[in-house]
Amino acid sequence: MTGKPYAAIIGVGRTRFGELWYENPESMVVKAGLDALESVDKGLHRADIQACYFGSFMYQVTNKLGLVPGYISRELGLNVPMTQTEAACASSSSALHNACLAIKSGVYDVVLVGGFEKMTDRYGKIVDDLMFAADPHEFDSGFTFSGLYATIMARYMYEFGRNNEKCRIALAQIAVKNHHHAVKNPYAQFRNEITIEDVFKSTLIADPIRLLHCSPVSDGAVAVVLCKPEIARKYTDDPIYIVASQQATDHVSLFSRVSTLEIRATKLAVSKALKEAGITLKDVNMAEAHDCFTIEECLFMEDSGFYNKGEGWKGIQESIDSFVGSKHIPYVGDGWEVFVNVGGGLKADGHPVGATGVRQIYECFKQMRYEANENQVSVEGDIRYALCHNIGGSGGIANVHILAREV
Amino acid sequence: MTGKPYAAIIGVGRTRFGELWYENPESMVVKAGLDALESVDKGLHRADIQACYFGSFMYQVTNKLGLVPGYISRELGLNVPMTQTEAACASSSSALHNACLAIKSGVYDVVLVGGFEKMTDRYGKIVDDLMFAADPHEFDSGFTFSGLYATIMARYMYEFGRNNEKCRIALAQIAVKNHHHAVKNPYAQFRNEITIEDVFKSTLIADPIRLLHCSPVSDGAVAVVLCKPEIARKYTDDPIYIVASQQATDHVSLFSRVSTLEIRATKLAVSKALKEAGITLKDVNMAEAHDCFTIEECLFMEDSGFYNKGEGWKGIQESIDSFVGSKHIPYVGDGWEVFVNVGGGLKADGHPVGATGVRQIYECFKQMRYEANENQVSVEGDIRYALCHNIGGSGGIANVHILAREV
Repeated sequence: MTGKPYAAIIGVGRTRFGELWYENPESMVVKAGLDALESVDKGLHRADIQACYFGSFMYQVTNKLGLVPGYISRELGLNVPMTQTEAACASSSSALHNACLAIKSGVYDVVLVGGFEKMTDRYGKIVDDLMFAADPHEFDSGFTFSGLYATIMARYMYEFGRNNEKCRIALAQIAVKNHHHAVKNPYAQFRNEITIEDVFKSTLIADPIRLLHCSPVSDGAVAVVLCKPEIARKYTDDPIYIVASQQATDHVSLFSRVSTLEIRATKLAVSKALKEAGITLKDVNMAEAHDCFTIEECLFMEDSGFYNKGEGWKGIQESIDSFVGSKHIPYVGDGWEVFVNVGGGLKADGHPVGATGVRQIYECFKQMRYEANENQVSVEGDIRYALCHNIGGSGGIANVHILAREV
Repeated sequence: MTGKPYAAIIGVGRTRFGELWYENPESMVVKAGLDALESVDKGLHRADIQACYFGSFMYQVTNKLGLVPGYISRELGLNVPMTQTEAACASSSSALHNACLAIKSGVYDVVLVGGFEKMTDRYGKIVDDLMFAADPHEFDSGFTFSGLYATIMARYMYEFGRNNEKCRIALAQIAVKNHHHAVKNPYAQFRNEITIEDVFKSTLIADPIRLLHCSPVSDGAVAVVLCKPEIARKYTDDPIYIVASQQATDHVSLFSRVSTLEIRATKLAVSKALKEAGITLKDVNMAEAHDCFTIEECLFMEDSGFYNKGEGWKGIQESIDSFVGSKHIPYVGDGWEVFVNVGGGLKADGHPVGATGVRQIYECFKQMRYEANENQVSVEGDIRYALCHNIGGSGGIANVHILAREV
């Protein structure tokens, strides 16, 4: 990489994702936070935490909560500085970005970073709540997020997959793969296999998007402990380093962007992150992609540069067909192989929106340290680099972090 | 100070505060943001902005907005990294704290920091909305924020001002002073003088709090441009430096704190900030105190250390009585003099909650550079140090920044 890492990750914790009827945001944050603190190999006292960064999206409407720092203070018994960030589905990766800068600034040595969301109590109302992350004109025109991504998916299929049934199949296969990956993830919301036929037979939500193209409504919380790289070995013999932390933004409204066939914020953030880490895509062994809808995982594979624009669906289909039956199914291309969403991604692990960004870090940390138990992915050699891609709304923001086994 | 400053402030901009019926969050942010960019003496291009930090509290419920970075991206035409922070009434000073760390980290050289809130469209509903920043148990017990501060004020008057009408008068005088300070502030919501009798005759809100003890419901936005200290003179010959940026948190719930007679977060943050700046209170020439209710300005004067606990009201009364008729009324004590809320504070300048923290920076910047025109405060010598104190809720968080004329 080009400079020293932003931070070392020394502990991670999370709740199960799903319909957690007996939890509230406070109880979930405590569980994930304490789980992360307790996971630090050589021990970490609560009093060692010098600052907290939490991200969440809709706690005001779902739980009538605000001033989250005050809650965290009470729940974790800390009076330290705390920041709460909001960036829709990228809320907690925005918290992580700021935690990285805070450690790099030298002001804090050890920080707790987390994300949470409690969505299921709102039942159907959540569909409208989520539209806070879209343009009001889109809401007023009758759009839901499924509708926005259906616009993207329909345009994609028309432009790049014209008259080609295989394109439609590829976009269903992504869901099949991610469900398959979640079967052995004990925290995942959905641990059941699905088939392409299941996808096509599932309820039509917003043509061409069907229920099984969509990530679910979920509750959950995740937390990780970061420290200054220089002191990481005081806490663990096996730290994972954050070697790139990049954000990019774009218009919140789909209709005002240059193209609906790409997420510009993803392109900008991934290219800056690779440059910052001093690596190329060929060095990336695993990636967590923001598969809120299956089309978004396909766009990620193109916008990041793994596949050429318009050819992602072909690469995805060929890869999945080649590795069907494997424990984990990688995407492959010219001289590269990358495992994407090995814990099930947003699609099957679940998508408590404010928790997702840090959940991606949790997954990579566990995999890179060979602590994923039954769900451990097999990579020839270690997982040297993992890339986490978390976007907000239909692409108004993209946060990209690259983790490294060694620096 | 003990180290190099976090950042230099090179430009500031704001809207008027008040009932801005024809504005929305987006339009206010654009006005404040462009005003800040245009105010940079030697010019600054929009493309020079490398990141944005904005704070706001209730945009989700007041305006059904989320994913603020996406809005800012569209409105300001930028694709740069952006962070949105929420810390109730301390939202934008939390944005500022993170912007300071970001610049200190060396990652960004020039950042735009702002805050906004659009509250008046909610009419009476805002009273309940604001309770997001309190504990749900407090809300469920029938508390409003006026009620919470009435609890603090009643206890204060009982404990420290027992049988003393002068204590009651002192807490009214704070409002009189702050209205007086706002008369020549062209952006202030209330530019009218009030008397002690007006305060006592105003509507009883939550005994002993009357209408004129309260800061108003307001709309408004503020923005400032920060840069790395080393490059400040490229943009202006008169930069103002941020030499301390400290946060502290405490229980969100009043009932679970050790005492209702002090704001622990204020004590912690102020003492850390003074230490960081390498100064004592005697060096502070002006302060922006978080006078959401007049009792809170009194608590600030004690918790920061200007007056001893329980004696703030005496010092305040003696100061105001001594300087009545002056253009600006300082608080005085043993060897120190400090002008507090010279633009009217939250009470009279207005309190669009997410904008207030950065509004305090705006005020100090203008005063320190002798750019406050008719409202310029007269300090013997320059205003060398200014302290900004911004809290969230009833004290769940306190953010304290110290600005310096020279470093």
